[in-house]
Amino acid sequence: MEYWSIGVMKQRILVVGTGAIGGFYGGKLAQAGASVSTLCRSDYELVKSKGITVTSTLGNFHFTPEKVIRDLGEYGPPPDYILVGLKVLPEIDTAKIIKEMVGPETAIVLLQNGVEIEEPVARAFPDNEIISGLAFICATRTGPGHIDHTDFGRLVIGRFPAGKSAKVEELATLFNDSGVVCEVSEDVVTARWRKLVWNAPFNPISVLGGGADTKTMVENPESLELARNVMEEVCLIAAAAGHPLPGEVVQQNIDGTRAMAPYKSSMLVDFEAARPMEVEAILGNGLRVAKRHGVSAPHIESLYGLLKLVDSKIRSQDK
Amino acid sequence: MEYWSIGVMKQRILVVGTGAIGGFYGGKLAQAGASVSTLCRSDYELVKSKGITVTSTLGNFHFTPEKVIRDLGEYGPPPDYILVGLKVLPEIDTAKIIKEMVGPETAIVLLQNGVEIEEPVARAFPDNEIISGLAFICATRTGPGHIDHTDFGRLVIGRFPAGKSAKVEELATLFNDSGVVCEVSEDVVTARWRKLVWNAPFNPISVLGGGADTKTMVENPESLELARNVMEEVCLIAAAAGHPLPGEVVQQNIDGTRAMAPYKSSMLVDFEAARPMEVEAILGNGLRVAKRHGVSAPHIESLYGLLKLVDSKIRSQDK
Repeated sequence: MEYWSIGVMKQRILVVGTGAIGGFYGGKLAQAGASVSTLCRSDYELVKSKGITVTSTLGNFHFTPEKVIRDLGEYGPPPDYILVGLKVLPEIDTAKIIKEMVGPETAIVLLQNGVEIEEPVARAFPDNEIISGLAFICATRTGPGHIDHTDFGRLVIGRFPAGKSAKVEELATLFNDSGVVCEVSEDVVTARWRKLVWNAPFNPISVLGGGADTKTMVENPESLELARNVMEEVCLIAAAAGHPLPGEVVQQNIDGTRAMAPYKSSMLVDFEAARPMEVEAILGNGLRVAKRHGVSAPHIESLYGLLKLVDSKIRSQDK
Repeated sequence: MEYWSIGVMKQRILVVGTGAIGGFYGGKLAQAGASVSTLCRSDYELVKSKGITVTSTLGNFHFTPEKVIRDLGEYGPPPDYILVGLKVLPEIDTAKIIKEMVGPETAIVLLQNGVEIEEPVARAFPDNEIISGLAFICATRTGPGHIDHTDFGRLVIGRFPAGKSAKVEELATLFNDSGVVCEVSEDVVTARWRKLVWNAPFNPISVLGGGADTKTMVENPESLELARNVMEEVCLIAAAAGHPLPGEVVQQNIDGTRAMAPYKSSMLVDFEAARPMEVEAILGNGLRVAKRHGVSAPHIESLYGLLKLVDSKIRSQDK
């Protein structure tokens, strides 16, 4: 039944937030045969006329969206999936942005960083399926209509807050058909905490440490020690929140980072472009969970205090 | 007897490290009537021909050293005091630099930042008097032969490791005669910890927070919280090391910083000039004391991990 429906009716997917993540994975879904449209703001003219060019270790490709829209009203009937690739920032109200295009059957896919980022969307659309997704990828939007995918690419997706769903399976099949390894998790919130074990240290340290790539951060003994302490605090908070992580996750993340080609974190890319950073999604939300459960997380607190200062400077220059 | 000796024989003082601190206080001692010479490296030609110009809230003045030397051998017989204003950096071996000019009666005055900075000098000159000094001053060397003194200026000096001494009294009298408020402490090591309560948070946060002045750091709630946590850790370490500080010292330092004209910390000035920073004197030494006494100091540890990364980048660019 599902196979048949995939064969006959193209899934209609609308990408909101067409940066590196939205553009890359949207493009892969189009390769797998879905009808993928994109909401674009700054890139609108260029993407409408030339599409998106992706340089990728999975093979370079070109993504010509079904429709390129500047306003949700231009799209048509609500899509089967809204794929959200927006940054998670306090001033970006995802629920408000997508509201107009959420039909009764629309699944909302959040391919975003951080923890506890689903709640506001889940509260706004209590009857819709929320699919939470994690992208383990090194990809950067290098310019309008250009994405550079340099390493990894695996996805973990799952129904929020937990469990199985046909839509998750369908989406995972599409991704896997396109060559993107997509794992389905029945406990995606735990997977989010697991990803935070990497993000919480290496995103902030790359910025605060003066623009350090992954290689520099793991080779400097003092910053490696700090990264390890932050990771251990993430594990403590996750466990207190009911999402215990396996004990080896810290060492695995360190070894994995050592094995990576030197990489500039997404937060460092934002910082260097003087764009607001995902401080709350990556540190603030975790700290609030820590506080709720009485867990001490002084190393994360320190990074948070410093990043808020850097972020507020960026924001004040922005005006 | 002492008054008479001050009147008749000029104290011979040699300033080693003629930056903002050495230049300013050396100049004030000369105003008080001492015979003050300076060891200069990069500024040699300019200071020899034109002296040092000081813009100061205590009144602008010009300091013409008795001798300006490039090499200690040019000085003559050992001085009564060597006033050390060098940065405290692992690669600067103060004992080695001053060795040639330390006579049996020479007192070595360390006007430097950080804690546990006296030991190497005290070990190298076990029979000489070591005077430890703290400068509460906002002063910057703005160019060769130019110092800008913008706020404060008080000194605390004392015999190291503790107690009274005639030389300390004599030096304090000279300073007070020159208009510099100089307090004598019989427990200067505790005074050093007390000063670290300010230095340990605000120097590192100013650099790591993206170049923040004092006003920005106390007005941003997250960085203020971080500063407070760091201050409290300094108090815990000091107490464990046998130098308990009064409970109100944290709030006093915060209030004092709020009342200051916005100020760029000396570490930030070094950072912006791409010069190595006093990471060990201001954080590393304190952390080693913490470890020795089993005190946990995770906020300081975090700042240390990040600063080491930034400092190693500066050093690698330096080569």
